[in-house]
Amino acid sequence: MTIILHELALRGDARPSPFCWHARFSLAHKNLPYTAVPTGFTGIPGIAGGGHKTVPVMEHAGKTIGDSWAIAEFLEATYPDRPSLFGGAAGKAYAVFMRSWGLTALRLPMLKVILMDIYNTVPAEEQTYFRTSREQRFGAKLEEFVANRDESAAAVRANLEPLRATLAEQPYLSGETALYPDYVVAGYLLWWRAVSPRRLLESDDPVTAWFQRVMALYPRIAADSTRAWDGP
Amino acid sequence: MTIILHELALRGDARPSPFCWHARFSLAHKNLPYTAVPTGFTGIPGIAGGGHKTVPVMEHAGKTIGDSWAIAEFLEATYPDRPSLFGGAAGKAYAVFMRSWGLTALRLPMLKVILMDIYNTVPAEEQTYFRTSREQRFGAKLEEFVANRDESAAAVRANLEPLRATLAEQPYLSGETALYPDYVVAGYLLWWRAVSPRRLLESDDPVTAWFQRVMALYPRIAADSTRAWDGP
Repeated sequence: MTIILHELALRGDARPSPFCWHARFSLAHKNLPYTAVPTGFTGIPGIAGGGHKTVPVMEHAGKTIGDSWAIAEFLEATYPDRPSLFGGAAGKAYAVFMRSWGLTALRLPMLKVILMDIYNTVPAEEQTYFRTSREQRFGAKLEEFVANRDESAAAVRANLEPLRATLAEQPYLSGETALYPDYVVAGYLLWWRAVSPRRLLESDDPVTAWFQRVMALYPRIAADSTRAWDGP
Repeated sequence: MTIILHELALRGDARPSPFCWHARFSLAHKNLPYTAVPTGFTGIPGIAGGGHKTVPVMEHAGKTIGDSWAIAEFLEATYPDRPSLFGGAAGKAYAVFMRSWGLTALRLPMLKVILMDIYNTVPAEEQTYFRTSREQRFGAKLEEFVANRDESAAAVRANLEPLRATLAEQPYLSGETALYPDYVVAGYLLWWRAVSPRRLLESDDPVTAWFQRVMALYPRIAADSTRAWDGP
């Protein structure tokens, strides 16, 4: 059986989607081999017989599963003898919280920095789709949405403060080993780095050292993630 | 053996300290009986032979332990057969993260709302100490520190957003049962409520329902926490 992971690819084969990275980390954590199949925005409706509006979409032994969290839960349930993604019930609750925290404390302020960078990475033939759908979703022109991007970048850096304090106590957000909460945050950093030439973190930031530890665990993810510069 | 917990008490026997509530929750979670001994700010140096600058301070079988986190770790190690405070290594990592998150996302913006309310709850003979030490610490007059309190209250409410999303998935922040991460947040809500007449949350806020669930687990904490109004 070959596991297929459909993931978003943009210009220059950039792989931006944080949610696709979350699915990659789940597969890598479980030591499962997989084939990553790139798709553009407009290719998503045609994936695996149709019915999906977003990626990642995973094909696993005849079953198709969309949504990174559903994929994580499926893999945890299907492969209980492989390393746990959550580390028990309280650890799974941590993953639930970190997903929610990441959406509000990271994803939104990050978008307010990199949305035009994403647009500039979208292939020419998909830019109209991207602009129209995002401007409708955010109720603003893309250029207006990122108007205060320096402030938004400062907000992202400030919002990372609890991570710095956590990493002063332990090497990973999840303790002595990396688990799903680490992957949530790492996925957002990979997203930023895939599209933006703007450096988010200083090299002496404790979050940088942690990110490099996570990357060292998963050489394939490190190799497949594109970037204009090193580090998060 | 009687466990003694020294905790801060202000005017009208208000018990404000979030860290003392964290220690109370740890004891309650472990089903350990304890005697809570109130102290004012100026009484702290005289507790248990001296040497402590903050409360809580716990006296346990001839041993004295300060700091709420040290107390939690001590109780978890000393009473492994009683209900776990953390729920394993990943759950403990969650507690570490939530402590860090609480300090930046809750404690600081809350202080910018309630610092004058705390001052007004401090007994007259300790107000000069409180004002001088806090104005030195924060580099501002107390009145200046809370000048934008409406904005700060809105920031606290906004910062609670990841909790709302988490509680849409599960009854407690820690999953099906309450664990240390729940107590971290509940302690800050008890702090606010002990001193401030300002209502933080609407009654239909999912965080309110969760807070009431936590209070229902620990009737003694609910009874001993003072407030000007019901709910968080």
